[in-house]
Amino acid sequence: MVARKLVLGFFLCLLGTTALATTRSPRLGGPEFCNLQRLSATQPAQRLEFEGGSIETWDINDQQFQCVGVAPMRKTIQPNSLLLPSFHPFPRIVFIEEGEGIIGVHFPGCAETFDTGVVGQQQQEWPRKMGQQGQEEQVFDMSTDSHQKVRRFRRGDIIAIPAGAVYWTYNDGNQEVVSISINDVNNPANQLDMQPRSFFLAGGTSSQSVQGQRHPTRKQQQQGGSFDFQNIFAGFDTELLAEAFNSDPEIVRSMQEPGNRGLIVKVQQPMRFVTPDEEQEGRSPFERRQGGGAANGLEETICSAKLLYNLDNQREADIFSRQAGKLNTVNEHKLPILSLLDLSAEKGHLQQNALFTPHWPINSHVVVYVLRGDAHVQIVSNNGEAVFDEQVNKGDIFVVPQFFAAVSRAGQNGFEWVAFKTNKSPMKSPLAGYTSVFRAMPLEVITASYDVSPTEAQNLITNRETESMLLSPQRTTQRS
Amino acid sequence: MVARKLVLGFFLCLLGTTALATTRSPRLGGPEFCNLQRLSATQPAQRLEFEGGSIETWDINDQQFQCVGVAPMRKTIQPNSLLLPSFHPFPRIVFIEEGEGIIGVHFPGCAETFDTGVVGQQQQEWPRKMGQQGQEEQVFDMSTDSHQKVRRFRRGDIIAIPAGAVYWTYNDGNQEVVSISINDVNNPANQLDMQPRSFFLAGGTSSQSVQGQRHPTRKQQQQGGSFDFQNIFAGFDTELLAEAFNSDPEIVRSMQEPGNRGLIVKVQQPMRFVTPDEEQEGRSPFERRQGGGAANGLEETICSAKLLYNLDNQREADIFSRQAGKLNTVNEHKLPILSLLDLSAEKGHLQQNALFTPHWPINSHVVVYVLRGDAHVQIVSNNGEAVFDEQVNKGDIFVVPQFFAAVSRAGQNGFEWVAFKTNKSPMKSPLAGYTSVFRAMPLEVITASYDVSPTEAQNLITNRETESMLLSPQRTTQRS
Amino acid sequence: MVARKLVLGFFLCLLGTTALATTRSPRLGGPEFCNLQRLSATQPAQRLEFEGGSIETWDINDQQFQCVGVAPMRKTIQPNSLLLPSFHPFPRIVFIEEGEGIIGVHFPGCAETFDTGVVGQQQQEWPRKMGQQGQEEQVFDMSTDSHQKVRRFRRGDIIAIPAGAVYWTYNDGNQEVVSISINDVNNPANQLDMQPRSFFLAGGTSSQSVQGQRHPTRKQQQQGGSFDFQNIFAGFDTELLAEAFNSDPEIVRSMQEPGNRGLIVKVQQPMRFVTPDEEQEGRSPFERRQGGGAANGLEETICSAKLLYNLDNQREADIFSRQAGKLNTVNEHKLPILSLLDLSAEKGHLQQNALFTPHWPINSHVVVYVLRGDAHVQIVSNNGEAVFDEQVNKGDIFVVPQFFAAVSRAGQNGFEWVAFKTNKSPMKSPLAGYTSVFRAMPLEVITASYDVSPTEAQNLITNRETESMLLSPQRTTQRS
Repeated sequence: MVARKLVLGFFLCLLGTTALATTRSPRLGGPEFCNLQRLSATQPAQRLEFEGGSIETWDINDQQFQCVGVAPMRKTIQPNSLLLPSFHPFPRIVFIEEGEGIIGVHFPGCAETFDTGVVGQQQQEWPRKMGQQGQEEQVFDMSTDSHQKVRRFRRGDIIAIPAGAVYWTYNDGNQEVVSISINDVNNPANQLDMQPRSFFLAGGTSSQSVQGQRHPTRKQQQQGGSFDFQNIFAGFDTELLAEAFNSDPEIVRSMQEPGNRGLIVKVQQPMRFVTPDEEQEGRSPFERRQGGGAANGLEETICSAKLLYNLDNQREADIFSRQAGKLNTVNEHKLPILSLLDLSAEKGHLQQNALFTPHWPINSHVVVYVLRGDAHVQIVSNNGEAVFDEQVNKGDIFVVPQFFAAVSRAGQNGFEWVAFKTNKSPMKSPLAGYTSVFRAMPLEVITASYDVSPTEAQNLITNRETESMLLSPQRTTQRS
Repeated sequence: MVARKLVLGFFLCLLGTTALATTRSPRLGGPEFCNLQRLSATQPAQRLEFEGGSIETWDINDQQFQCVGVAPMRKTIQPNSLLLPSFHPFPRIVFIEEGEGIIGVHFPGCAETFDTGVVGQQQQEWPRKMGQQGQEEQVFDMSTDSHQKVRRFRRGDIIAIPAGAVYWTYNDGNQEVVSISINDVNNPANQLDMQPRSFFLAGGTSSQSVQGQRHPTRKQQQQGGSFDFQNIFAGFDTELLAEAFNSDPEIVRSMQEPGNRGLIVKVQQPMRFVTPDEEQEGRSPFERRQGGGAANGLEETICSAKLLYNLDNQREADIFSRQAGKLNTVNEHKLPILSLLDLSAEKGHLQQNALFTPHWPINSHVVVYVLRGDAHVQIVSNNGEAVFDEQVNKGDIFVVPQFFAAVSRAGQNGFEWVAFKTNKSPMKSPLAGYTSVFRAMPLEVITASYDVSPTEAQNLITNRETESMLLSPQRTTQRS
Repeated sequence: MVARKLVLGFFLCLLGTTALATTRSPRLGGPEFCNLQRLSATQPAQRLEFEGGSIETWDINDQQFQCVGVAPMRKTIQPNSLLLPSFHPFPRIVFIEEGEGIIGVHFPGCAETFDTGVVGQQQQEWPRKMGQQGQEEQVFDMSTDSHQKVRRFRRGDIIAIPAGAVYWTYNDGNQEVVSISINDVNNPANQLDMQPRSFFLAGGTSSQSVQGQRHPTRKQQQQGGSFDFQNIFAGFDTELLAEAFNSDPEIVRSMQEPGNRGLIVKVQQPMRFVTPDEEQEGRSPFERRQGGGAANGLEETICSAKLLYNLDNQREADIFSRQAGKLNTVNEHKLPILSLLDLSAEKGHLQQNALFTPHWPINSHVVVYVLRGDAHVQIVSNNGEAVFDEQVNKGDIFVVPQFFAAVSRAGQNGFEWVAFKTNKSPMKSPLAGYTSVFRAMPLEVITASYDVSPTEAQNLITNRETESMLLSPQRTTQRS
């Protein structure tokens, strides 16, 4: 038993030594930035509709998002549609709620290691016509294309996208791809200000496509001018660009003037990519080198870094209880690129009426998105006030600021969520359960602190000591 | 001589390479945050009285504390009293001015390595009655308790408390425990805003106990509402907590409603802890691994990290002069946990009329608390103005902002102080003495800079070259 | 070809892994800090004239400098003149535009490793008279002076000056020394606020010497009080300083009251220093240890760190094209001290009509100073607007904020510039050329993104694929 505790302490604390040292700063925009009297569950404030899907954004001016420095976003991509290439001045973590597809995340200078070169009869199948407004085009052999790695994603995947890296997403499946992501605007990688910006390399929007769910009038839509933007080529001189690309100004003009294509476009003919299935190839050499050590080879470069991790794998659950539920986490030790992003995530599932132990996040803010079911959630601030006391439902986002204490109890249909955290190796401190702070304290300190008897104190310590984080429902209170 | 200088340079600069690289940010709350025209020595602005002691806080809205991002605090704990468990959203460094006692600093997931299990006759001595409101309680055998490490502290100790770690303090001695501490609200570990928050796990205060020394009227006390707070359990639903702890709601209610216990409580029966005396066990394996290198074992975890360092040990003085005084410092190389906190401290003693050389702190702010005696202190800003020119006395706190130049001369009774610094390996640049910047410069540069003769320049360099930091009083000026 | 690409990817990405992780913060002074609608090329806003030269500063309140957190400065030092010793609360990078001289950068505690001790007849030559107001002085043998390393600099040198290090500059050549430098006020080393402060150890200014180019009236000059400052000794009590230096109060008074000397003084008699020529001694041991690894010896200290790197060495050009131009960069891998400063620089030269490829800086802001020639520069923000579209000329400074896309085309006389970057290992992402993001993407993604034919997409990829960053002028557009 002591041995088991020692081992647990060892692993938890290996994380601890690195995790506590972050490079972030307190929210400095004003002394009252996190003086949160009232948190609330939120739905998207704005929705952009495009021919191939939609983008929904939460209100970054909401004080709770200002405090945690995070801008949430939900994207829906229709089958055979492409989210146009873009980059962002901060890291982004994406969770795939539904569907599957292909993502390309490109770094400048990385090699074009994917070669579609095929020979013989296959080559006969691939050439195709790809016309513009129906006119005849010369047949082009795309099979000779070589490009940087592209990655297949599926439901349950976490995808890490570093600041400044160009990425695009293509839905090659039969159902919608729905993803929820957070933009870490307060990340050290962002030397600009706290505005959530996007830089698109293609497409463009016009105010007609904005559907403010809260502000539905036409006039207000036009005021939401931040979504009436063009891709970055639009700002350059056409002749200058044409010379830079050594191309026909007409081609450049079609890059600059996308018409009404928006940011997610229908693709005329389904795209096919060479994508070995990552998950079936075993762990990468990069992954094997756990726990630090000196970098020393090609496998260490950002070019070949693993960017995806699936949180739906029950066999890899970090916490599992038949009565209470399960918890899958991904941090820098499972997905090393997260060390660069200083972000991580967790997917949890609570059984009917089960509890997520009261706890506080030690070294990160937590942004929770509800996937399924519902729960009663309470969040308490430093002066002992409940700043959040609500039932949360599918599609809601709520925020647990760093150090604020939170507890959740699943409803009749259970509770499933994904939580994004602003630390590469997040830690939490539970009040009840196996790693509870009460187990850490001498019994006498508990009795004196609460003026309770030793027996009562012992109950606080031991009544949940076989459970960790996720607590099974108790008959005594299930009645209520 | 050259060899001696080389060696000195070597050690000072080993520190330098790591020390200059910090993860902090400039004070961004406004461009004029550190535009300090006038600094002043300060006393506590508010005092909270409890049955077992008191907590005094300095005014964080004072511009000089805003600039350095630090909130000072002094606590007095009566014999046989307990400072209730709490945590803070930033690291804290504590200096023990008077008394001795026990401190528990607890990290989630660390093992319960202290076992009070005893056998035979000792067990007969320990069981005790611990009643609540006098009623009869069942006898409970506390001797079987196991918990995380607790630590004995004594006068002169520096204690490092990481952000988010729960800690409590018990005075088991015969005299008051008086401690002075700083809260590093601008630390990268704090992702909330710059408000100095505390999260208590027990107890609670009501406005009656506030004694604003500056604002003594009843009405103003009530306005100081920030001190009318409850512990974090108070914000949760009682039934929900009872289920989480799988305990009787009555026990939970006694956690939530502390009555008028305050934050420091008298303990009914003296507590006894198992505490091997740290100092007598030699240096820990962790400590031996000086100067970096890869972490590689159980001894490296935060669970077993050394958190205390005594600054009263004259044999370990870093600078010692029979005529001038002595200086004991503690930085990340002496107490590795400080590397995580990015904080450090120094205890100094100047003999009667001796000087602390004019110097500027290179990579930290400095917050000085006067322990004994008095001194004349001058602090000069970048435009050559004396922003501080006062006599400081016991109990005063004054601030030397980073890069501001300061000099001190002890009064007739000498001068003793503890200084807290916002860097894990602080450096200072002295203007006079062995490591003076004038010794670094070519003689010709000095003569040209000040339009003085080579002999005069040589005097500036050599007249104090045998002394370092602490300068003995000179007969020539003692007259004045 | 694939092998060549792999190798390129390897080296570029070795940089990438470390470069993306910075310790900076977003600009937090307000959410609209980098909401730049209009950038502009700028000239100095203020000029300070002294007997030995002048200091010109750019307007730090200009929003574009607020966004990038950088304060530019140009200094002109006359032959046989000395820029008086000073230090700054942030790192500074200096580029030597014209001339040559000696610089001393001093760290406290570093050894006096330069010894001017000479014997025999040389000693006879060196002693000299150095009088004050012409009165007779005793002959002093300066040949016995020992001091810290001093360094010879020349045109094209980048000089890295850490925060808090005292430095001085002496022009021992026959022509003016002209240097352009940036002060990184938002650097993590600066724990003060965002004001660009200087701490001088000698000299002082009075408002008469200020020549505001934009605000030329006498009254306005007096309001620019920030330049009416004294050295830091002026703020201390004379007697206290005299005791600290154990010197005559008269000497101290001459340090405190510089009269009208200003900050750059004429030296009465030329100074001579012992300076082995760094460049001819081969690479230092420190430099050889490329690519990280554990620090392990005396050569690693900041005392012996290389602080200079020459950007005029055509043989060490990083990018070279006979038709387009050349690019010399210096980052932490070439000059390791830059790792401490988190800054770097680049010197470029474009041939007549050649282009700097459209690109965006991934992990730094870029501050560009025009050395010679002119160029047409366009900078585009995230919403596709050209926020900068100007011809820039010698002496102009313009800013490319992080992630903003920029393109330049040299005029008829070519274009030469030095760019300062707020990252120790800056990366840029080009839109055209060998490492273009279009080469990284699958062809099908390009065709779908821009609704162009595969042939047109292929042209975008391949038409510049043999060129990197610098693009040669094309006949097609040279006409225009």
